[in-house]
Amino acid sequence: MRAVVMRPGSFTVEERPVPVPAAGQVLVKTRACGVCGSDLHLFRHAQEMVDTAIAAGVPKELLDAGLVMGHEYVAEIVSFGEGCREELSVGDRVCSTPFLTNSGVVQNIGADPTIMGAYSEYFLLDEDRLLKVPEGVSDEAAALTEPLAIGVHAVNRSGINKGDKAIIMGCGPIGLACIAVLKERGIDVIVASDFSPRRRALAAEIGATDAVHPKETSPFESASSNTASGRTIVFDCTGVQGVFGQVVNEAPAGSVVVVAGIAHGEESFTPAVAITKELSFHFVVYYKDEEFSAALNMLADGTINWEPLVTGKVDLDGVGAIFEELEDPESHAKVLIFPHGQ
Amino acid sequence: MRAVVMRPGSFTVEERPVPVPAAGQVLVKTRACGVCGSDLHLFRHAQEMVDTAIAAGVPKELLDAGLVMGHEYVAEIVSFGEGCREELSVGDRVCSTPFLTNSGVVQNIGADPTIMGAYSEYFLLDEDRLLKVPEGVSDEAAALTEPLAIGVHAVNRSGINKGDKAIIMGCGPIGLACIAVLKERGIDVIVASDFSPRRRALAAEIGATDAVHPKETSPFESASSNTASGRTIVFDCTGVQGVFGQVVNEAPAGSVVVVAGIAHGEESFTPAVAITKELSFHFVVYYKDEEFSAALNMLADGTINWEPLVTGKVDLDGVGAIFEELEDPESHAKVLIFPHGQ
Repeated sequence: MRAVVMRPGSFTVEERPVPVPAAGQVLVKTRACGVCGSDLHLFRHAQEMVDTAIAAGVPKELLDAGLVMGHEYVAEIVSFGEGCREELSVGDRVCSTPFLTNSGVVQNIGADPTIMGAYSEYFLLDEDRLLKVPEGVSDEAAALTEPLAIGVHAVNRSGINKGDKAIIMGCGPIGLACIAVLKERGIDVIVASDFSPRRRALAAEIGATDAVHPKETSPFESASSNTASGRTIVFDCTGVQGVFGQVVNEAPAGSVVVVAGIAHGEESFTPAVAITKELSFHFVVYYKDEEFSAALNMLADGTINWEPLVTGKVDLDGVGAIFEELEDPESHAKVLIFPHGQ
Repeated sequence: MRAVVMRPGSFTVEERPVPVPAAGQVLVKTRACGVCGSDLHLFRHAQEMVDTAIAAGVPKELLDAGLVMGHEYVAEIVSFGEGCREELSVGDRVCSTPFLTNSGVVQNIGADPTIMGAYSEYFLLDEDRLLKVPEGVSDEAAALTEPLAIGVHAVNRSGINKGDKAIIMGCGPIGLACIAVLKERGIDVIVASDFSPRRRALAAEIGATDAVHPKETSPFESASSNTASGRTIVFDCTGVQGVFGQVVNEAPAGSVVVVAGIAHGEESFTPAVAITKELSFHFVVYYKDEEFSAALNMLADGTINWEPLVTGKVDLDGVGAIFEELEDPESHAKVLIFPHGQ
């Protein structure tokens, strides 16, 4: 089978053996897989990560073999390993949280060089984690389950209530997922902030009530000009160094800040300011199983206007070029890979 | 009347006029007033604060007049201003949150050079904020209401539940107040951490189940060695720069961190670590009115073992010397000032 292999600075399409499901595992055929911001992050910092892994004693041969990424997938059941309950059938379309259990150890699909990610024709999933994709939900929609689940989790962790005002800083896929969930929850004030005109337009299309260029209009001023009396809930989805300290300085007293973007390096801030304003921060990375199912249900029942999110589609041979395009934030929201063609 | 006036580098006892209560205000006679860590902080950084105030346009004459600190008081009603309801009587002992309303503006008692703090024989309070100190509650206990209220607030903000494990970093008065409240809430694992042997002994006396020297035993290891299955809730009451980043690195995944100590300068940390561990942070400074009353009730009903907290008593002439002693964390937990003698 064919798989896209990432090594520092390059993507190559290579032949790999079709993996064999162990007990409790299922072999699946990839129908579609999204490119995640964390994939871009892995690619940008691949050499550093390899150096760190070598220093930590990871065998060089393993790292030379490269990494097959891909954890935002919809796939189709091909065959079952031993001991499966087989409650679903061959041909059923499935999603799952991106974890694979091997000999009792849980591995991260798409971030572990010893297992196959979904930038490939076939890979393995745990039967116990499978969620059947309902009829009528397209592959494009189903592939958005994982990033939308992060939005569900970020909004749940924020504790936002009706009457509160939301500010979303950074309108990449995670910021847009938060906006979609906030709209579904009936939040009346949703101020999006991004430098990119295209992303601001997408934010408005998905549900933002205001979308500002942060150098022209402060999102904090835009939110505070609204007369709603609730708290300000900030979603930092930028992944940009320095934004944290800026939020500490600019957020109004009593704000809750959810940090969902993975920034590189160090952040600094003035604790006396955070204390005086009694700010709260929640750092988020994943989601609970029930938040993942909730995301799939939102896509299935049509409450989420997901179509504007999918801005590009490629096959395995197009992955290298699309990662170059994705360096420009104007280029895309979500790109989907179709390993067997569209 | 006599008052202790703080200027950069010095305390002097000076004669000041007895203040006159405006409408809705009450003149009170100070029975006892605690020395707060924030008073120490104000004294240490007084010159910087004066420089900042001058740069901000505060008149030099006002700053030259100095500051009368003191916001942890128990006092006795002397007379009422116009328009008071007078539901309490002259001679009643009272506490209150440290705010005074003048012409609709709320000022901070003990931190505002234009009004009198409780390091003095008499000062003013808002009638609306007064809480009567119940019979049988000593002045020593009642003067602890304010710092204990910060502990009540910090514990409330943490969202700690039975089964969770508490770590208290820094066992000054705020850390000790948190320990007292955690014990009262029935938390089974309360690990205190401080360099000072005296403070560790106090922590144990107040309710800590373990008290460690952080360079000898990690409080995180001590807490994790307990088999309770709850979350780890960290109370950073150190006010020491650098502790924040250390907590980010050492706290287990899913921890909630309450930052209650006012650190000077900047903090830095690695956001990728905070995100991977899904940490939450709550910065706290004050309390709600109901938390202040709850603190007084806890002191009144005897659930708090407060006596070990009071380690020193001075009159107004002893304030300068006691601030020198307080630079040594071995010296004291809470020092009380008795402006009219003990």
